[in-house]
Amino acid sequence: MTIQELTDRIDDLAQLLSGNELVAASDAVAALDPHEIVTAIERLSPRAGAVLFRLLSKDRALAVFDALSPAVQGDLVRQLRDSEVATVFADLDPDDRVWLLDELPASVAQRLLQGLPARDRQLTAAVLGYEQDAVGRRMSLDFVTTHPGLTVAQTMDRLRARLDDAETVYTLPVTGAGREVVGVVSLRDLMSAPDDATIDEVMSDPQTASATSDAEQAARVCADRGLLALPIVDSERRLVGILTLDDAARILKQEESQDVARQGGVEPLGRPYLSTPIPRLVRSRVVWLFVLAIGATLTVQVLSHFEATLAEMTALALFVPLLIGTGGNTGNQAATTVTRALALGEVTPRDILRVLGREVRVGSLLGLALGIVGFVIAGAIYSWPIGVVIGLTLIAVCTVAATIGGVMPLVARAIRVDPAVFSNPFITTFVDATGLVIYFLIAKTVLGL
Amino acid sequence: MTIQELTDRIDDLAQLLSGNELVAASDAVAALDPHEIVTAIERLSPRAGAVLFRLLSKDRALAVFDALSPAVQGDLVRQLRDSEVATVFADLDPDDRVWLLDELPASVAQRLLQGLPARDRQLTAAVLGYEQDAVGRRMSLDFVTTHPGLTVAQTMDRLRARLDDAETVYTLPVTGAGREVVGVVSLRDLMSAPDDATIDEVMSDPQTASATSDAEQAARVCADRGLLALPIVDSERRLVGILTLDDAARILKQEESQDVARQGGVEPLGRPYLSTPIPRLVRSRVVWLFVLAIGATLTVQVLSHFEATLAEMTALALFVPLLIGTGGNTGNQAATTVTRALALGEVTPRDILRVLGREVRVGSLLGLALGIVGFVIAGAIYSWPIGVVIGLTLIAVCTVAATIGGVMPLVARAIRVDPAVFSNPFITTFVDATGLVIYFLIAKTVLGL
Repeated sequence: MTIQELTDRIDDLAQLLSGNELVAASDAVAALDPHEIVTAIERLSPRAGAVLFRLLSKDRALAVFDALSPAVQGDLVRQLRDSEVATVFADLDPDDRVWLLDELPASVAQRLLQGLPARDRQLTAAVLGYEQDAVGRRMSLDFVTTHPGLTVAQTMDRLRARLDDAETVYTLPVTGAGREVVGVVSLRDLMSAPDDATIDEVMSDPQTASATSDAEQAARVCADRGLLALPIVDSERRLVGILTLDDAARILKQEESQDVARQGGVEPLGRPYLSTPIPRLVRSRVVWLFVLAIGATLTVQVLSHFEATLAEMTALALFVPLLIGTGGNTGNQAATTVTRALALGEVTPRDILRVLGREVRVGSLLGLALGIVGFVIAGAIYSWPIGVVIGLTLIAVCTVAATIGGVMPLVARAIRVDPAVFSNPFITTFVDATGLVIYFLIAKTVLGL
Repeated sequence: MTIQELTDRIDDLAQLLSGNELVAASDAVAALDPHEIVTAIERLSPRAGAVLFRLLSKDRALAVFDALSPAVQGDLVRQLRDSEVATVFADLDPDDRVWLLDELPASVAQRLLQGLPARDRQLTAAVLGYEQDAVGRRMSLDFVTTHPGLTVAQTMDRLRARLDDAETVYTLPVTGAGREVVGVVSLRDLMSAPDDATIDEVMSDPQTASATSDAEQAARVCADRGLLALPIVDSERRLVGILTLDDAARILKQEESQDVARQGGVEPLGRPYLSTPIPRLVRSRVVWLFVLAIGATLTVQVLSHFEATLAEMTALALFVPLLIGTGGNTGNQAATTVTRALALGEVTPRDILRVLGREVRVGSLLGLALGIVGFVIAGAIYSWPIGVVIGLTLIAVCTVAATIGGVMPLVARAIRVDPAVFSNPFITTFVDATGLVIYFLIAKTVLGL
């Protein structure tokens, strides 16, 4: 089914649901596979999504719930009856449960946890014990291990016994006496080896990540190296879980959505746009807008300071948006490039001097190019002294903006703030005020005001 | 090894390389695993990277080259001798070859292709035949298939024969008489089934993607559903390749880097920041800066038009950066949210009216909140009529900005332009000029100028 067709069907379904034609809606849902139902729920309002969810058979409901994003699961939980929630909650893997618990109010989370069988509650608590951003909170506990002294045949038997419930059977951590990870072996390696070979002959060096390390970093290692499962270890290198490639992809998707949102000056929604209620959209933006507007009052103050100069020569006001706009754009470019490089692990805060050196050079070259054009155009149309002011201002503003834009994300990371927070709108505001000061100082000097 | 330690070692290595102390450098490289060497090459200049690469044994060189990003592979190829290039090129998989060919000048690409054995050349040409963005260009051709009538035991034999060279043996497409895909079966399913069961009893419904469909969309399906391999089919549903989960993760990483870059008004670098030469950084930004600056001359024109009003009341100039800044921020927020929703497939261009309706409401609510505060502050500090002007302008500007920002990405997608291109800096510029017109019209009306 193409996306167009699916969208049409979902829109029809929405009509049926809002008209309370549940029999027809149920027929329409029967024709969709679980992932298409997920798309449907993510386009509907939370209420309509819950009605649709109730139309599903138990098995399908569990499959659909499992594939929903945690935020939408949270919405759904708030709409369903307690008994319905308990059923789907008990069916989730411990790590998926933790994603969901993070979305729920503490009281609901508490109640759900208490409803679990003792062993499940214990496993979930183990995962919950790690900090919000740690990979320990995202790892899976259903893994199969083997040992260096076991044979390939013995390992295959262990593996067959866990075919039904293990998160993956394609990559197995190899653990030594104290449960420390000494290697990994893939099912492919096992199949190519003779039955009586021992694991230490076929295993390869393990890449591992500490359970307390940042989930995004661990996920990036997993994805960059195409590892089907990355063993997660404690401080003594003992195996505590695995991160699978599909969970890694999920973490990266969430992190990237957050980075993109922050760089645009929005709080991450963490949920699909169309099913997000308007008040929540407003909330995701209003705080940032106020913070930025308060920052922007700096520009009002700078301009008041130069009001006499402005009154003497109104023409100076004409170029204000152009100049600060160009400064903001230059700063954003640098910040965007460096923030992304940080996220991908290409630069670290310790590279700050190298980044500074590069951005000073890039910014001054850009400023020179724009400044020459600005000088010629403004000079020809208005007057040559104004041309000089515009040209010099562009050189100075571009250099300063690129430098601030490039260095700010590194400073943010060094003081443990999300670099994307010190982001484009923030840099724009900061560069705006600085640019105005530079502009009027140059104007006063050159024009002798 | 932590990232800190690795960075230190790489910096030492860079010193050795620049001092031409190759023996010591060779020892230092010997202590690194292939992925650490990849990190090293991505931090070094192309020339130093090539020197380092020559220090590697053939096997390690091939493993390292394979794991480099295509852009860095391209840099390396330009630095190496033809015979060295031919060796690594022949070793790549057809789909990896195509990533690299996309980075090279046509003449080099042609020469490399001619150096390949006939069969490899043919396979590569098959992949090259698809359009730049199509998943056909990123799929792998080394797959193992099975048929509905074969038994599990027969399938396991087929699979064992391909353990060495197949891209994955964990998910097998099931093809019917005319090579059309009728199902998929996982190695896990095969292992849980009795040996004499036939494939049609154990296979499940296939999710497939057309070879001509967008690579990002196919990769997103693969990652969202955690599919280890997605069968890629032609227009008659015949199997032509597979997309593996790690290739999907690679495609998404590249696409996301592009989206992030475009939204910041930079051309995507496609390569690590620190190893990118300064002129290339300048080139990635200068065109956008000029385009945006030309757009910003609109603001100069608007302001000239209202120059008399400005001269009469200089105080109006003080609020220009604040007002257009707030408009730009509101527009960016909407654009960021909708662009991301488009990338994730949550909205399509056909949702334009729903998006429009939502953004008008969100924008006017945000404008109301900011406008009331603006009215009170500006009114108390300057004068109540100015307060009214500021308040009304904020309401109008926020509403217009959110609407334009939300709708623009959908329009871009509808006319088949990358939505991220019509991005934040672009929207800022557009909203700046519109905001100024609104501001002065309101000011003239309210203040009777």
